[in-house]
Amino acid sequence: MNQDYIKPDNWSIIEEGFDADQVKSSESLFSIGNGAMGQRANFEEQYSGPTFQGSYIAGVYYPDKTKVGWWKNGYPEYFAKVLNAPNWIGIHVTINGETLDLFTCQKVENFRRELNMKEGWLSRSFTATLSNSVEIQVETKRFLSLDFDEVGAIAYHITPLNSDVLVNFSPYLDNGITNEDSNWDDKFWDVLSINHEANQAFIVSRTMKTDFHVCTAMQLQTLINGKEIEQDKTASNRDDFVEFKYQNQVHKNDTITMIKFGGYTTDRNHDKDNLIAVAKKTLDEVSKLGYNELLELQKKAWAEIWEKADITIEGDVKAQQGIRFNIFQLNQTYLGKDARLNIGPKGFTGEKYGGSTYWDTEAYCIPFYLATKNQEVARNLLAYRYHHLEKAIENAEKLGFKNGAALYPMVTMNGEECHNEWEITFEEIHRNGAIAFAIYNYYRFTGDYTYIPEKGLEVLIGIARFWHQRATFSEAKNKYVILGVTGPNEYENNVNNNFYTNYLAKWCIHYTLENIDKVEAEHASDFKRIMKKVQLSKKELSLWKKVADAMYFPFSEEKKVYLQQDGFLDKELITAANLDKSQRPINQKWSWDRILRSPYIKQADTLQGFYFFEDDFTTEELERHFDFYEPFTVHESSLSPCVHSIQAAKLGRMEQAYTFYLRTSRLDLDDYNHEVHEGLHITSMAGTWMSIVEGFGGMRVKNDTLSFSPKIPKQWNGYSFKINFRNQILKVHVHQNETHFELDGKTVLDIIVNGKAVKIQPNSLVKV
Amino acid sequence: MNQDYIKPDNWSIIEEGFDADQVKSSESLFSIGNGAMGQRANFEEQYSGPTFQGSYIAGVYYPDKTKVGWWKNGYPEYFAKVLNAPNWIGIHVTINGETLDLFTCQKVENFRRELNMKEGWLSRSFTATLSNSVEIQVETKRFLSLDFDEVGAIAYHITPLNSDVLVNFSPYLDNGITNEDSNWDDKFWDVLSINHEANQAFIVSRTMKTDFHVCTAMQLQTLINGKEIEQDKTASNRDDFVEFKYQNQVHKNDTITMIKFGGYTTDRNHDKDNLIAVAKKTLDEVSKLGYNELLELQKKAWAEIWEKADITIEGDVKAQQGIRFNIFQLNQTYLGKDARLNIGPKGFTGEKYGGSTYWDTEAYCIPFYLATKNQEVARNLLAYRYHHLEKAIENAEKLGFKNGAALYPMVTMNGEECHNEWEITFEEIHRNGAIAFAIYNYYRFTGDYTYIPEKGLEVLIGIARFWHQRATFSEAKNKYVILGVTGPNEYENNVNNNFYTNYLAKWCIHYTLENIDKVEAEHASDFKRIMKKVQLSKKELSLWKKVADAMYFPFSEEKKVYLQQDGFLDKELITAANLDKSQRPINQKWSWDRILRSPYIKQADTLQGFYFFEDDFTTEELERHFDFYEPFTVHESSLSPCVHSIQAAKLGRMEQAYTFYLRTSRLDLDDYNHEVHEGLHITSMAGTWMSIVEGFGGMRVKNDTLSFSPKIPKQWNGYSFKINFRNQILKVHVHQNETHFELDGKTVLDIIVNGKAVKIQPNSLVKV
Repeated sequence: MNQDYIKPDNWSIIEEGFDADQVKSSESLFSIGNGAMGQRANFEEQYSGPTFQGSYIAGVYYPDKTKVGWWKNGYPEYFAKVLNAPNWIGIHVTINGETLDLFTCQKVENFRRELNMKEGWLSRSFTATLSNSVEIQVETKRFLSLDFDEVGAIAYHITPLNSDVLVNFSPYLDNGITNEDSNWDDKFWDVLSINHEANQAFIVSRTMKTDFHVCTAMQLQTLINGKEIEQDKTASNRDDFVEFKYQNQVHKNDTITMIKFGGYTTDRNHDKDNLIAVAKKTLDEVSKLGYNELLELQKKAWAEIWEKADITIEGDVKAQQGIRFNIFQLNQTYLGKDARLNIGPKGFTGEKYGGSTYWDTEAYCIPFYLATKNQEVARNLLAYRYHHLEKAIENAEKLGFKNGAALYPMVTMNGEECHNEWEITFEEIHRNGAIAFAIYNYYRFTGDYTYIPEKGLEVLIGIARFWHQRATFSEAKNKYVILGVTGPNEYENNVNNNFYTNYLAKWCIHYTLENIDKVEAEHASDFKRIMKKVQLSKKELSLWKKVADAMYFPFSEEKKVYLQQDGFLDKELITAANLDKSQRPINQKWSWDRILRSPYIKQADTLQGFYFFEDDFTTEELERHFDFYEPFTVHESSLSPCVHSIQAAKLGRMEQAYTFYLRTSRLDLDDYNHEVHEGLHITSMAGTWMSIVEGFGGMRVKNDTLSFSPKIPKQWNGYSFKINFRNQILKVHVHQNETHFELDGKTVLDIIVNGKAVKIQPNSLVKV
Repeated sequence: MNQDYIKPDNWSIIEEGFDADQVKSSESLFSIGNGAMGQRANFEEQYSGPTFQGSYIAGVYYPDKTKVGWWKNGYPEYFAKVLNAPNWIGIHVTINGETLDLFTCQKVENFRRELNMKEGWLSRSFTATLSNSVEIQVETKRFLSLDFDEVGAIAYHITPLNSDVLVNFSPYLDNGITNEDSNWDDKFWDVLSINHEANQAFIVSRTMKTDFHVCTAMQLQTLINGKEIEQDKTASNRDDFVEFKYQNQVHKNDTITMIKFGGYTTDRNHDKDNLIAVAKKTLDEVSKLGYNELLELQKKAWAEIWEKADITIEGDVKAQQGIRFNIFQLNQTYLGKDARLNIGPKGFTGEKYGGSTYWDTEAYCIPFYLATKNQEVARNLLAYRYHHLEKAIENAEKLGFKNGAALYPMVTMNGEECHNEWEITFEEIHRNGAIAFAIYNYYRFTGDYTYIPEKGLEVLIGIARFWHQRATFSEAKNKYVILGVTGPNEYENNVNNNFYTNYLAKWCIHYTLENIDKVEAEHASDFKRIMKKVQLSKKELSLWKKVADAMYFPFSEEKKVYLQQDGFLDKELITAANLDKSQRPINQKWSWDRILRSPYIKQADTLQGFYFFEDDFTTEELERHFDFYEPFTVHESSLSPCVHSIQAAKLGRMEQAYTFYLRTSRLDLDDYNHEVHEGLHITSMAGTWMSIVEGFGGMRVKNDTLSFSPKIPKQWNGYSFKINFRNQILKVHVHQNETHFELDGKTVLDIIVNGKAVKIQPNSLVKV
């Protein structure tokens, strides 16, 4: 953990001073993305120190051959990985024939990196003394356009400081890239053609197996002291690489600038044969527009995002920086335009984990997107699962289920399973429940029921069928049990009757039954279409109901708590606070068996059920369960602190809520887990947002009504957030003694604040 | 399964007719070994069809880098694999320049392979018509000498049948070999030198990482019509290969013979710098002795083995062949001369599973070696674990245990863990109990207590410490529990309170306490030495006792059975007989989660406890547990049928006992599991022996006395076995109506037959 390395700032992430040991971490933290592509903050010029090069194109993946020690029936033979894409940002630089490389320079001074979150760009500046003793000042700025999401732009400025110099810029495209996490060092890309014409170059390549066709392109402009110059270049290329060489004599204190536009067109969005033409057209368009104008558009586009999504925190710059970093990264990763995409656990900042979609999307990200975007965005996230329903049914069939039962994969890219640990892949089945819960959540928040008859009900039926078949009857208990599962707490594997899983299963069946009735009554033609497709009999429905009604929940009469699973009380119940510090984090210090037989909880499990279904339990019950389980919780998942923060806030324990909040909001900025060099924790960032809005703000939606019970950590002067609720934006500003509500919309909004009805008129401030 | 492919024969394994599809299976079945080395029955001449080439040297292994999908703390970084050794058997043959290759011949007729178990050799004969239409008769015989265990011998005879021909023999040594099961295709061998001189050649090579030095050697003789000829050869070699070329014109119907002696010397047994000299000396010695004389010695050596170990079965040739195959293979794999060696699960017949030592050795193999060899052999097997005690303590430390607690690895070569599935490696801890039980078993059978003060007690103390630390106190149960284990039934993972494990743990502690007292009383100086080493306090002993005395055993009051583990009765208790045949074997048809939540049992688990500790339970209890568990048992482990056969026999259910016996005795010969091409199931072969001796014969040792309760399957006319009991050999011959006992020894032997005392005089027949 390094809490001083990133400078506090309200709107920017700033690094000052060059430290080769931090390069890989900074490459993650300063990553940029525009929902369609993204890249780590690799330097444009050569860097021979430790680095992790990564550029990624949304939806372009590679099915890597599964690698396991011991094969278990049911493992997927291949699984989809985020694929390192061709590098378009590279600009090789020499000064008087000497390569610019920060790792080998005599001196690097005044190094500064800034990721400007307000405007969506990344800059870098430094003064370098090369080994030939030439001193130069370098400034670069880079962004991936939100308006033209197939291009990015780089401005690379060099000013010689102590002599006239010969500057050689060699901008290039490089398809010779590999994945750090490749299983077998297979070749992932096959180059089909390399072309160049005037100041543009194109590499068309295809991915092996998946056969995605991608055109990587660049266009160059050279400027001296801000004025474009016409000039000759030499072009050269080899198998998977093309570069231009621009050579200029530059006077001391003059500035030479290389503008590089680049990016990708893919056959996910265009005809395979048209990729170069589309890329050429887009490059022509943006270069005509010019770098500066494109940057102005970028600022406007980000301003629009912040207009709906910003959270302010007064009196705590680090907290302010943290929450904006989370909101910024989520928006860099996913913007909701394409229902075939989802929110990868590392976004465009790394490769680890493979796949792109976990239950994180439904449990953590959907609330964020529901409240900060138009409803189409969350609807697209739901539709993503609808489009994978057939694959989920196939997946369930592989595990022995039948008759349309659906088990969504633990991790997926295209609907197929991308995970291969039996205790997770086959047993962490609660993910199926989160997908149903997200449908409920979407309707609850938006009031848009149309999704359910159109798409959602089929998903619900597949899921309900799974739970019905997965539960078995225990003669001994005279109840239905669910054996052999892993709950959200992955520090328990293959347990019986995980409370959260059983509760979710019961709820899924009941919720599906309820919606079958509602769709039958209110959407007759959809009902007919669906029933024809799924072949559901009254008999089957009554069997579902039988299972749901007689579901078993382990409960301790003595402790008056539901048990996380059968046998939980047989453990040595020593709280986490009584563990020696040297033993933490247990996932790095202990062998797996020791973790499993311990009572320690990785992330909310029973409490996740209390979070999803809070209205089913009293506050006293919540308190009792919180007090029983939280002391055993080691919060070693990035998804853990947020739920606990929300619940602590609900219980009025603001100190504890604030402590949890800190842990989630600067997880990556302060590198709590010593792994930021591998990439950022994108999905848990939505949990940070939830901690403020649902935790401190107490925001809920019930019966088509927004409600709040605002609380504020004593460390803050105030904070504000915005809720895009049914096409109006409500701004909530919480101060130490009162809360202000402001509505940007046209219709009076009835809300509930601390249990009391409050009317908010459009465009007027209401203080409560 | 192919039940007709091996011809029934009392003493030989015979294959008739050439079938390329059977080559890999036959390579396993016809494997030969002499305890120090072994090899699959690969052809000497080139074979271009599907083949699995395998030669192995006992104790020469390679630590392969672990390959897993997801790393868990505690996994070994490397683990030892059986290493494919240089090939010394190869003889390239051309006839008139045409390569002899059975896969490409015009015709192969009268193909016959015989593995003569009585005399310990492998032969092959066939008539081949080459594509040049030359017809030749080939006869080969090969054996690995028991007397000179660093050499083997091959006689390769060719008789041209339809013309005079030019025969070219090119015998070679090849170090360019790889492992089929290599994780990363690493290079395993490094060739140091290649030499040849007269008719001898030597390759000295070393294994990477482990740095074993091995000299692979050969010596050649050529004969025409049985008479050695002097002749010139040409020698050639490349990086990892050396060959001689012998060219001879052979008249139609004359026979040319190549005698090849070859094998290995290693620095496990000799000085590194002496390997060639030792190999040369041994080759000189055996070639001076001559092929025929060496073969005569081989026959004598095997006769001595059979003298102590043979089992006869009258009236059932296949059963006879099966049991002798099992006894033969066990003796090919391990002869007990070297306490650094053990009994690999595939012996010298394949590579699968890595490592060489499982709990199979203690639970299944030791009884066989106890009764068929001098006691030094079993004592060497115990000492093997004694020598690994320090490593077992280190292994336990890696998993968080301390103070000298020892956890023996699940699979090992040199004491280090060779396994990497958390549910097995970390959780299948009952293996530790089997190691203690073997010490008890050795003393019970041999009456030799010296092993315990000398070595065994330290092992017992390490094991008892492990159990004491591994059990935890459950407040809820007010008992000690053992959480998170995998029992012998590997179709359950990470269960709580596996009856067998808990019972064994309790027994281990009590047995260790008992021996601490006994060693203190009877071997004071050993006691002093050991206590100084292990630092054991009275306090610690009382803590052990507390755990053992209050151990929890799951029990169903309703069914009156001990439960395999907590929660077993929550399963859907459908017996295996009610499973659709299409679903069997479940380990091939079902995903892992489905297997885990089913009640199906892979091999004896609770019943394994009843087998080890049969005197702790009444016959009624055994019957109740057998009737409860066996119906859920799918016997998908090669170790399963034998224990059930023994228990069925004890319960007087001879039909069932016989059915189980059949399943174990011809497992490989009839290829029940469709996997014999990968190698043989060596360790389970000892279970077959147990089925006859302990099952049908009812042999037990209690209070220094042998007892029997002979039963006989109605399908047999009679059967006999031998027991080497305290330096006298008792032959037991069971007929349908009576049993004959004959003692080869000098002292009257008091035994118990069907509960009654019987005196057996030396060298006289007693009928009961």
